Amino acid sequence: MVALHLEEALDQGKARLAAYDALRFARYTDDFKGIPRGTVVFDDGPTVFGYPHIGRVLALGQGLVEQFAAPVWMEEKIDGYNVRAFRVGDRVLALTRGGFVCPFTTDRLPELMDIGVFGAEPDLVVCAEVAGPENPYLEASPPWIEEDVALFVFDLMRQGRPGFIPHARRAALVQRHALPSVQVFGRYRLDELEAIREVLVRANDEGREGVVFKEDSQRDRRAKYVTSNSNITDIQVTALNILELPAEYFTNRILRLVLFLEEQGLERSRELDERLGAAFLEGLLGAVAQYREEKKVFRTYRCRFRDRDNAQRLMTQLQQITARQVNVSRRSLKRQGSHWVLEFDRVYPSMCGVLGHLLGGGLVFD
Amino acid sequence: MVALHLEEALDQGKARLAAYDALRFARYTDDFKGIPRGTVVFDDGPTVFGYPHIGRVLALGQGLVEQFAAPVWMEEKIDGYNVRAFRVGDRVLALTRGGFVCPFTTDRLPELMDIGVFGAEPDLVVCAEVAGPENPYLEASPPWIEEDVALFVFDLMRQGRPGFIPHARRAALVQRHALPSVQVFGRYRLDELEAIREVLVRANDEGREGVVFKEDSQRDRRAKYVTSNSNITDIQVTALNILELPAEYFTNRILRLVLFLEEQGLERSRELDERLGAAFLEGLLGAVAQYREEKKVFRTYRCRFRDRDNAQRLMTQLQQITARQVNVSRRSLKRQGSHWVLEFDRVYPSMCGVLGHLLGGGLVFD
Repeated sequence: MVALHLEEALDQGKARLAAYDALRFARYTDDFKGIPRGTVVFDDGPTVFGYPHIGRVLALGQGLVEQFAAPVWMEEKIDGYNVRAFRVGDRVLALTRGGFVCPFTTDRLPELMDIGVFGAEPDLVVCAEVAGPENPYLEASPPWIEEDVALFVFDLMRQGRPGFIPHARRAALVQRHALPSVQVFGRYRLDELEAIREVLVRANDEGREGVVFKEDSQRDRRAKYVTSNSNITDIQVTALNILELPAEYFTNRILRLVLFLEEQGLERSRELDERLGAAFLEGLLGAVAQYREEKKVFRTYRCRFRDRDNAQRLMTQLQQITARQVNVSRRSLKRQGSHWVLEFDRVYPSMCGVLGHLLGGGLVFD
Repeated sequence: MVALHLEEALDQGKARLAAYDALRFARYTDDFKGIPRGTVVFDDGPTVFGYPHIGRVLALGQGLVEQFAAPVWMEEKIDGYNVRAFRVGDRVLALTRGGFVCPFTTDRLPELMDIGVFGAEPDLVVCAEVAGPENPYLEASPPWIEEDVALFVFDLMRQGRPGFIPHARRAALVQRHALPSVQVFGRYRLDELEAIREVLVRANDEGREGVVFKEDSQRDRRAKYVTSNSNITDIQVTALNILELPAEYFTNRILRLVLFLEEQGLERSRELDERLGAAFLEGLLGAVAQYREEKKVFRTYRCRFRDRDNAQRLMTQLQQITARQVNVSRRSLKRQGSHWVLEFDRVYPSMCGVLGHLLGGGLVFD
């Protein structure tokens, strides 16, 4: 039994009380005494531990040697958002990384995986990435997902227990319940660097975000590593709202890109220079053009629901969570086939403020 | 007589006592009650006011209309460092923007301008940019200065008085004493936007940094505006030490670049994308290669002196000023013709630390 220190966490503002319909729970808003951020404790119900941080190596060869002591499983890292799906009472819910119940993922879950697995394994926690062009959180999306979203399981946990189900057992459960899984590229010894690099170069060419290494040992140590192209993609999709993110978001990605090139022995090319430059300029010119036309900088998101009420729940939640940084406003909610399609805008207040000041001829002192 | 509030500024840590040889003075380290940072008050001697901040417009057309109420002089902005040259007792000294006596500029001043002007005008303060490939402060340098440094006067002040000598009087003094001056592109009405734009597009093509507008009126209001190319140059020369600068340094320049393009009606081109991407990648790949070879990231500076002692003074000053952020270490000091040539390195500790950690296979959590 893991000590949750819940009262203390609540007292110190490291956990907060919340509710979803009639379900009441506490949510850890920070790491606290070994309990990860995003851990959720239901009243008279289960505890679902948070998904722990995975560190990133930027130099692959040296990173493998430094971080691991046994062969590693190499799995695809998908560019989406992290959820934990589980059963509480007779409902199946999906939590975001931060420990919010996600109305969108919860609504769509039966269409994204066989939730019958929770009948057979009632205390299972399915850790997965949800990704695709029609998701409510991220602009980026894997290029091979053409519409809607898909779910990719990458870990399994048990309620009330931190830590993951070991690889072989996870593989067996995934197979038995036909769960959609991330690609597992294989198990590699630490000296099989050439083979690992080949996988990475191919992943980069295919527009994949990167990989996660998981040590095949009891301690199950992990590290992630991303491809060069995913850094450019990140810049490309966020340049429109460059002022809403810490500037380090951008400089870190350029550093990662350079270390990927250097590590993989890839040459800097005119094409790469051009893609990096275009990633910045296209988005920002778009922001300026948008501001000139509409007097605001925003991006429209679209996602579909089975139940109309969940769309409203999502809007309410987004408006509460993001009120300070980004304004969320609904465009439309329309029936389309068997779904309700929600469209909403994220309006970027810093972009609007700064472009308004600058395009209005204001001075800056720097 | 302007109130200096010096005792108060010293008490509050907004001014500090300093010395240069036998000269003792106080230096304002911050703007304080209307006295600009960099103001210097000599014991029993003159006061030299700091050079005030000039705001930047990023949208030219609207900026001119917003900031000015009368025609403006348009002058070249040179990519160098700001100095104020003046006479105290029988010496002529040069102050940096921050109010340090610059041993390099002070040493070279008689070769950069006719200091006889201070015989005729003892209380003159010459405000100038010093620029060129062999300067001790900046990596960037105007492309048409092939070696050493040159000095470009852009304002004149009087000792003990804030504010500038008006344009016509300045022009007369510059001419009479044959002082090297920045280019004055002309005097423009605010509705002559097309003519102003033509000058800017040409300046951009010629690799010039930008322009300063000075209102032809008693209030002498100013604003600066930089070219697209100068933003790329800034990124290019600092990418090697990207982690030593605030990340906003880079994102701001990309924003300025985009606003320049949009303002001037220039198309985004493949060539521009490529140059922006290359500006980041070339420098950073260089830093990684340098770290692999030399276990540090550094840049070598070179500058020449008339007097050997001044080279030592500069080294001592740089080591004191930059101790916390950047390590400065001397490479060599050699006689060459009529000069002493100093070579020294700036070693970038954050680059060394981060690359050491990452290339050693360390993890980052973000």
